[in-house]
Amino acid sequence: MEKKINRRNFISTSALAGAGFSLPISASGEAPSFLQRKDDRKVNIGVIGLGERGTGLTDLLLRRDDCNVVALCDIHAPSLKRAKDKVIKAGQKVPKTFGDGEEAFRQMLELSEVDAVLIATPWTWHIPMAVAAMRAGKFAATEVCGATDIQECWDLVNAYEETGVPCMFLENVCYRRDVMAILNMVRKGMFGEMIHLEGGYQHDLRHVKFNDGKTPYGSGVEFGETGFSESKWRTNHSVFRDGDLYPTHGIGPVAMYTNINRGNRFMHLTSTSSKARGLHNYVVDHPNGGKDHPNASVEFKLGDVTTTVIKTFKGESIILSHDTNLPRPYSLGFRVQGSKGIWMAVNKSLYLEGESSNPHRWEDARPYLEKYDHPLWKKFESQAAGAGHGGMDFFVINDFVESVKNKKNPPIDVYDAASWMAITCLSEQSIATGSQPMNFPDFTRGKWMKRKPDFAM
Amino acid sequence: MEKKINRRNFISTSALAGAGFSLPISASGEAPSFLQRKDDRKVNIGVIGLGERGTGLTDLLLRRDDCNVVALCDIHAPSLKRAKDKVIKAGQKVPKTFGDGEEAFRQMLELSEVDAVLIATPWTWHIPMAVAAMRAGKFAATEVCGATDIQECWDLVNAYEETGVPCMFLENVCYRRDVMAILNMVRKGMFGEMIHLEGGYQHDLRHVKFNDGKTPYGSGVEFGETGFSESKWRTNHSVFRDGDLYPTHGIGPVAMYTNINRGNRFMHLTSTSSKARGLHNYVVDHPNGGKDHPNASVEFKLGDVTTTVIKTFKGESIILSHDTNLPRPYSLGFRVQGSKGIWMAVNKSLYLEGESSNPHRWEDARPYLEKYDHPLWKKFESQAAGAGHGGMDFFVINDFVESVKNKKNPPIDVYDAASWMAITCLSEQSIATGSQPMNFPDFTRGKWMKRKPDFAM
Repeated sequence: MEKKINRRNFISTSALAGAGFSLPISASGEAPSFLQRKDDRKVNIGVIGLGERGTGLTDLLLRRDDCNVVALCDIHAPSLKRAKDKVIKAGQKVPKTFGDGEEAFRQMLELSEVDAVLIATPWTWHIPMAVAAMRAGKFAATEVCGATDIQECWDLVNAYEETGVPCMFLENVCYRRDVMAILNMVRKGMFGEMIHLEGGYQHDLRHVKFNDGKTPYGSGVEFGETGFSESKWRTNHSVFRDGDLYPTHGIGPVAMYTNINRGNRFMHLTSTSSKARGLHNYVVDHPNGGKDHPNASVEFKLGDVTTTVIKTFKGESIILSHDTNLPRPYSLGFRVQGSKGIWMAVNKSLYLEGESSNPHRWEDARPYLEKYDHPLWKKFESQAAGAGHGGMDFFVINDFVESVKNKKNPPIDVYDAASWMAITCLSEQSIATGSQPMNFPDFTRGKWMKRKPDFAM
Repeated sequence: MEKKINRRNFISTSALAGAGFSLPISASGEAPSFLQRKDDRKVNIGVIGLGERGTGLTDLLLRRDDCNVVALCDIHAPSLKRAKDKVIKAGQKVPKTFGDGEEAFRQMLELSEVDAVLIATPWTWHIPMAVAAMRAGKFAATEVCGATDIQECWDLVNAYEETGVPCMFLENVCYRRDVMAILNMVRKGMFGEMIHLEGGYQHDLRHVKFNDGKTPYGSGVEFGETGFSESKWRTNHSVFRDGDLYPTHGIGPVAMYTNINRGNRFMHLTSTSSKARGLHNYVVDHPNGGKDHPNASVEFKLGDVTTTVIKTFKGESIILSHDTNLPRPYSLGFRVQGSKGIWMAVNKSLYLEGESSNPHRWEDARPYLEKYDHPLWKKFESQAAGAGHGGMDFFVINDFVESVKNKKNPPIDVYDAASWMAITCLSEQSIATGSQPMNFPDFTRGKWMKRKPDFAM
């Protein structure tokens, strides 16, 4: 009975009140521990995927005094050992480890002591693992990107709705300091009504997509079977897919500015890809490559620059860029334009009607970003110091752990994950059909009309 | 016989060799003067449209010693007189004037002494007047924009092909100093192969679209019948049309970077408009407006920000922005991205692989713009000084007059005009059908495969 009440309590605080669920039962026949857990004990977390990213996030978990890393899973033994040693060195109990094959994570999900699971595996594993975690009663958190088909996005939503166990999508850029200061200003109405927004992933990843098979970051032109680390799995997406493969760093903040799935939603998109030259050129021009290297004959399908334009229910237009194969400085290219003003990240400037002193002139954004620094950044600045990606990784992990502790739906949830990741699939379809518009599913099944903004409130 | 030889000489220097033409005859039965004119006399020019823009361009003609302004046409008597006075003050013969109704320009086109006609009228007159000029044997030059339907673009092309009389499209931004320096760098291969480009017209025109009916620039919220100057005709397009109304300042330079109609061509586009708020808000918030002003009930159809994405035959992607209704700093938003580097206008920066000293870091573009200043700018810098729009108006007028003098097809011709202006019509169609892709006609009827770059060579 207590289990059921706990579960109902959780559900009543989520957007799911009134929906009918069957109680999720783990493979071992035990009731799932997340819904049973008492609020006063530390959160027990298992981590799946201990490459560079998973290890970095584990470090952040180990810095906290409100959670334990109790289980680890990776099929790469050295990575698994490295993470295990870190947990032990942090003074925690020896974690249980799982590494015997690609399905080993399912054994971890049977551990009754695990409340929540953090997933930092290659893209295509994110959704299956998150779904399996929810269905095993574990609060899931997954790194960004991964959908290969719209149905996978539905799988994620359905797993949540059928179990009542949440999943957080770890889009850290939503927590970037300038992004949150702008969110603060947007919510104060300083930009007026939202009209047009831009964002993207503009990052020269050639040194990530290729290496010598032994060390990361550009040491050669190997990928796939002969590659190392990310190049082992990530680069293959550039061979077989043409679309916005990595939309969420750009769309996450934009979705928060426009209240997507909370009174607003994406309606349709079109995508257009440029020719693909960057990766081939890299292989040919690299000292360890050359025109006779086997990878010089690979046809990389991913256009060097993919442009996606989204229209929302509320009438905003959004440009998303994906640009990872060419020499260029890093830029997420944010632009927030409303009826009263505009902010652009690339020139670090803004213009606010009535506020900026020179009409028609850009103004340095910095004083505004400082003045409107988000309250969460003010509160957690010292704790965020030293966390990855300029501190924003602290915030995304903090919201994950706090959501587990408080048994609440996280501020970036399955509906966000589904509609943001769906961009990849829809953009592939649009490009494959000559930029035809593709309609977004309503992954909330109508709940977007009533849901309220809850991110960073 | 001489007429015919002259005409053949002209045609052999144009891209039209081999096509069959009927000799154009003016309404008065005389042979057209452009094809008859001797190379050693000054060019006689008639100007149609003497508002702010036409008067400014007339000033530039009057600064030159190789042409005469022999005729003027405007239906607004004070504007006509102002221009006439300027011609006389410049020491030229009293020009013939035409102002009796909207068709008065046709009388000017009958003047045998007129070699060429410059058109700076409201948008919808550009094409009919240019077509009439060519059919009357006058070398035409038209200010930018104006097509309301794809057929009008064909009208322009057909008039040229049927008469052999050229038309220049006066897209001055092609001659902007930084734009031409970048063109110089593009042609030297410094950016590598062109991959992705951006441009647009991002200019807060609210003060142009409204005034008090007596003075220009934001003095009230009147337009159309009760407006003055541009607001008299331009604003109505924002009421009745939703599309990229003004694409050519952005697409002109981009077309030159990518050799459009010269080995390359536009294949298709998609357009998406944001909601429309800016103009309504302006009327309501203006001290001379208010929510009870009649114009507060006008439904402005033009989305505040229109985004168009074009795909070219060579595989480049192009983003064009149209953004004229919101408070924002002026920016044409150029971005030129190739396989070896990127330039962006908004942050005045570039990155060139192997050249920029800090990998992944923006570099100030200025030293490059100075070092690669286009030879034409070096040559004509002193003559351009004081000409409109930072000097670029000198260059566009110079190319026009030189093309007439040399009886050659101008570097921005009917094919460019047609394919650039077509963007407006296609973007309207795309937006009206939910961002469906629209295919570009091949206005060159295949000649793009053989034409060579000739702009600023």
